[in-house]
Amino acid sequence: MKIAIVGAGALGLYYGALLQRSGADVHFLLRRDYDAIRKDGLKVFSIDGDFILPQVQCYQRSEEIGPVDLVLVGLKTFTNDRFKELITPLLGAGTQILTLQNGLGNEEALADLFGGERILGGVAFLCSNRGIPGEVHHLGEGRIVLGEYQHTDRQRLERLVAIFNQAGVDCRATDDLKRARWDKLVWNIPFNGLCALLQQSVDHLLTVGAPRQLVRDLMLEVIAAANVQGLQRSIPESYADKMLEFTDSMGAYKPSMQIDREEGRPLEIASILEAPLDYGRKAGIAMPRVEMLATLLRQVSR
Amino acid sequence: MKIAIVGAGALGLYYGALLQRSGADVHFLLRRDYDAIRKDGLKVFSIDGDFILPQVQCYQRSEEIGPVDLVLVGLKTFTNDRFKELITPLLGAGTQILTLQNGLGNEEALADLFGGERILGGVAFLCSNRGIPGEVHHLGEGRIVLGEYQHTDRQRLERLVAIFNQAGVDCRATDDLKRARWDKLVWNIPFNGLCALLQQSVDHLLTVGAPRQLVRDLMLEVIAAANVQGLQRSIPESYADKMLEFTDSMGAYKPSMQIDREEGRPLEIASILEAPLDYGRKAGIAMPRVEMLATLLRQVSR
Repeated sequence: MKIAIVGAGALGLYYGALLQRSGADVHFLLRRDYDAIRKDGLKVFSIDGDFILPQVQCYQRSEEIGPVDLVLVGLKTFTNDRFKELITPLLGAGTQILTLQNGLGNEEALADLFGGERILGGVAFLCSNRGIPGEVHHLGEGRIVLGEYQHTDRQRLERLVAIFNQAGVDCRATDDLKRARWDKLVWNIPFNGLCALLQQSVDHLLTVGAPRQLVRDLMLEVIAAANVQGLQRSIPESYADKMLEFTDSMGAYKPSMQIDREEGRPLEIASILEAPLDYGRKAGIAMPRVEMLATLLRQVSR
Repeated sequence: MKIAIVGAGALGLYYGALLQRSGADVHFLLRRDYDAIRKDGLKVFSIDGDFILPQVQCYQRSEEIGPVDLVLVGLKTFTNDRFKELITPLLGAGTQILTLQNGLGNEEALADLFGGERILGGVAFLCSNRGIPGEVHHLGEGRIVLGEYQHTDRQRLERLVAIFNQAGVDCRATDDLKRARWDKLVWNIPFNGLCALLQQSVDHLLTVGAPRQLVRDLMLEVIAAANVQGLQRSIPESYADKMLEFTDSMGAYKPSMQIDREEGRPLEIASILEAPLDYGRKAGIAMPRVEMLATLLRQVSR
């Protein structure tokens, strides 16, 4: 299977490396890491064991890759306006496009451009960070929940799950991609938002008392909005406590949006906070804290 | 009238200077500005005209001042634990204590220590900042609303108002000190809180759209809490719009809490945000945005 990795950051580099190691024909579209990886290969520092890929197929333009079977999209969502330019040269008759990006609205944007039947979405529960060029750090988790944007071909979905499983990724298929997306937002909205705003890692927010309560209140607003989106099964409020306890084990982890702010990049406010707020608002759900968080983030990222 | 200024910052220095200029016998308890003012006097740069007081009665300890007729308290509220030590030496039989401090709880704390009958409270609508030692900058407004903590002697109150008027201060008496305190909180909570959190001056928050809406939503929460405190007249919601328009004219003004944060001082979170939250909570008023703001401020000021 010929795979193109578009948006080879902390997520794209990690999953791309695992796929290549398992035998897939992986082609990386690179920018920052191009020179380093071409020269010295790609180094993965992982809690599951470090490894290096000495030979990596590196490109700076999609045209050099040409049509592939699968496009894996790991772009920061604030660059979604480059979908057309970056992905069009990679498309053949049967090309599937899998977005593992954050937040809401990515499958929709891809479907508008390239047709919904070829779009798949994956929700990655992954703690990873970029290191210096040519290196990626896998700090925790890594599982993926995969679903079709339109229910067209369950077997295709299962084949993709198998490819990830073969690469050592805990991957499962879901019939309810929307639910998986909202599940992740329950974590992403408070932690990405607050850590980026305050420039503090997750452990600072877990202090028993007001900070932890604020995280929980934000989670409950997201759960309330999720549960009016027509999910197959609703998200129980206890999921908030489960996520808090899960985060207790993460130590001084910095969510991607915090790192984006530290490194002066734009923030994924639109996909992680504003799109969910929009869905909540349309369904009549008040999300005062999430709304305030989005406003404060916009305010510091002007 | 012998007056002691305790807490001679941007507010204490300014009103103290006006009182001395009008003939009052003013004694300044100083720390940072002691050397500069003793040597070169006190310089006031004011929108109403600059002036200098070449001779100022400066002290480093309250004992050197001794009993006075009026103690004017301008301390930052996070130093309220020093009331006893700083004020006790200034008390005689008829000494009145006037706090012009921010937020809620200051009259109560003074009354607990020194008896409620001698306590007065004033709400100062003043834009002023400290300059280099020996200088204070008056940037706007300056009016004071004065009230007794306990209704004991209206004539005493009127005499104090007259002293401020004689000093050129727009000062009036109120029978409802509580209402005056909450009036000011409608401005103080959003602007002190958000400007300190975001490290942005007030003009950044007045942008039409989400930022201005957030300020207004915070104001409405404060107004709702105020109106269940047994005020003589309730605060109308239109007061929020009046305050927004008033702030439009202030330019790039930095509220005191923003300056406190810039200069590494503690923040007046307890008196400006947490005490009002407590009063709101006890009366069953939900203040999710104010609560979130207080939590975020505590989080950045640890």
